[in-house]
Amino acid sequence: MLPNSIQKLIDQFNKLPGIGPKTAERLAFWLLKNPQSELEEFADSIAQAKKDLVICSVCQNISYHDPCDICHDSARDKKTICVVAETHDLQAIERTGEFQGTYHILGGVLNPLEGATPDKLNIDSLINRIRNNGIKEVILGLNPDMEGESTALYLLKLLKPLTVKVTKLARGLPTGSDIEYADEVTLGSALNNRREL
Amino acid sequence: MLPNSIQKLIDQFNKLPGIGPKTAERLAFWLLKNPQSELEEFADSIAQAKKDLVICSVCQNISYHDPCDICHDSARDKKTICVVAETHDLQAIERTGEFQGTYHILGGVLNPLEGATPDKLNIDSLINRIRNNGIKEVILGLNPDMEGESTALYLLKLLKPLTVKVTKLARGLPTGSDIEYADEVTLGSALNNRREL
Repeated sequence: MLPNSIQKLIDQFNKLPGIGPKTAERLAFWLLKNPQSELEEFADSIAQAKKDLVICSVCQNISYHDPCDICHDSARDKKTICVVAETHDLQAIERTGEFQGTYHILGGVLNPLEGATPDKLNIDSLINRIRNNGIKEVILGLNPDMEGESTALYLLKLLKPLTVKVTKLARGLPTGSDIEYADEVTLGSALNNRREL
Repeated sequence: MLPNSIQKLIDQFNKLPGIGPKTAERLAFWLLKNPQSELEEFADSIAQAKKDLVICSVCQNISYHDPCDICHDSARDKKTICVVAETHDLQAIERTGEFQGTYHILGGVLNPLEGATPDKLNIDSLINRIRNNGIKEVILGLNPDMEGESTALYLLKLLKPLTVKVTKLARGLPTGSDIEYADEVTLGSALNNRREL
């Protein structure tokens, strides 16, 4: 019933993570209301997104250069590595402006049931980096969930023999939150990790 | 910090309705993991979506032909018009398979505060259609919300002098719902519109 070209567009949106058939339809019809020039701008941004991009051979970040801007920046502390699952985690940490070290992108977290085994992650390159560059501290910047925790434990076991300091991001109450509504685990962590003022 | 081409892609996703900056970032990074051929397929579907499409001069539906497939179909009842706000409402009604008449796409609903005044909607063409084609029934298939209701009232006032039967979609409990959790207005409608068995 729907014209082919619209159905195709809906199908494409439907492939995106978290976009169901109804949302896909809504987005497609919204796009149709835009002038052709804007559709072409959008299309272009998708087709061009990956062009000229390379993976940094040091930290596996996406960049125009190899090494990437962060690994190339002489002001960054090359002896401290923050290990994150994905590039967008790096972006989130960069936005805080609190970290002056470098990163290592794992490319995911361990999830053996979904085929994400250790050999699928950039772990070997992390070990080599630590071995060959006198790294002082590895910060495990993984999500505080099941997969993130088990990946952190797995990495900790591998990193122990390398005599490098391994830390992880602090747990506690998120800023702006309400003690009354905090879950027990978070509130427990906040209590155990309390700081003297 | 983010490569330009990725930022551009995120900005484009962010323009879509209901897609905030975080979701836009997630979608963009997800796309980057796909092979270039799939990105180009997606880009193509956006750039081509509107190509060869025309607006049906009878019902204002989007189609490859004018009149559209529905208005052209001799099996459809041309004397019954279901008035809907947008094409996706037409699609929703078509999916039920319960309607054999034709449609009229208003192109929105009245919302004077946001500039959607009556002259912005396809109301004149609706009046002309009713006047010149001996239309028997106009079904107002507008959303059961503030804007939909006031648009329906506005249309009713215009259609009254045309001596055409005007109906609207029934209100009541949605199938599969729970009386316990139904809101008062819905439950009230269901009670007032009760049917003898």
